[in-house]
Amino acid sequence: MELNYRTSCSPLEDLGPASSYVDEIMAIIDRLPLFEDMTPHEVIALCQHMHCYGAPRGINLVREGDTGDYLMVILTGSVVVSKAEQCGAKVYATVGPGACLGEMSMIDGEPRFASCITARPTDFAVLSRNDLNRILVDFPRLGNKFLLLLLQMMTRRLRDASVRLLPHIVGTAI
Amino acid sequence: MELNYRTSCSPLEDLGPASSYVDEIMAIIDRLPLFEDMTPHEVIALCQHMHCYGAPRGINLVREGDTGDYLMVILTGSVVVSKAEQCGAKVYATVGPGACLGEMSMIDGEPRFASCITARPTDFAVLSRNDLNRILVDFPRLGNKFLLLLLQMMTRRLRDASVRLLPHIVGTAI
Repeated sequence: MELNYRTSCSPLEDLGPASSYVDEIMAIIDRLPLFEDMTPHEVIALCQHMHCYGAPRGINLVREGDTGDYLMVILTGSVVVSKAEQCGAKVYATVGPGACLGEMSMIDGEPRFASCITARPTDFAVLSRNDLNRILVDFPRLGNKFLLLLLQMMTRRLRDASVRLLPHIVGTAI
Repeated sequence: MELNYRTSCSPLEDLGPASSYVDEIMAIIDRLPLFEDMTPHEVIALCQHMHCYGAPRGINLVREGDTGDYLMVILTGSVVVSKAEQCGAKVYATVGPGACLGEMSMIDGEPRFASCITARPTDFAVLSRNDLNRILVDFPRLGNKFLLLLLQMMTRRLRDASVRLLPHIVGTAI
């Protein structure tokens, strides 16, 4: 865990390695049934590469436009996802335990798409791109399962966004 | 390649294993620079799990609502992506060489989101979920790289869809 997360958004409580939160993370992974499920042993190995933090309400965990190469899995609490607009910030969603945030910048290296602010005291696990690369080198099969979970999550979001976008597309009728 | 693709959308020309099209597939992969690049050796191994077909114009390669567990990489030609609406079909996009189609159903097992019809004579490479699972078991490091490529592509699409959706979101201002 090379990410110096503490300095980027204090005041955070360092909750230690995610291996202390295996049960909660296992419950989240169990909700994604396709492909092979992760074994408890694999979840433990995954958690050994993640680190957990706790934040009070009102903390900006991710700032739109910032660089950042880590994702967060929400364990407890609630986070508001918003984007800056001319007349303030527009709320995209409010998410809770099991939600994954920040994975787009971890994957493509582009700036953060939206801001994420805690709405309630929130515990979360962090995985950086370096952590992911280390998993892929040391545990390639576990890496593949984790990447498939990410792909399933991205697919669900893309289907949802596309359905919501459809009425607004000025497309040619054929 | 267990997929009996030929029967599902004739008339297709069977172009043989994708290993005859390594250069074209390598050029497509080279456009996605993040994470580790695939070596020529790995691209050859990937191509050995894919199969190529040629279709004349006006062929429905994927039908909205159908089940289907394979993705297609367009090598040459042009494909129109559309969704059924009350007054006909609304065109989402027209895509060409390098485009990947059908990956959402391969990943999540849900029905096809849109239809894909060739606008010009089109060659494409097919990878089924069985092919992917075989790669993940036999070549886990190659599997890592392929899944990362898919993730980068999905991320780009999700960013694009989210940007287009933003003006239409009736969100709470904060």
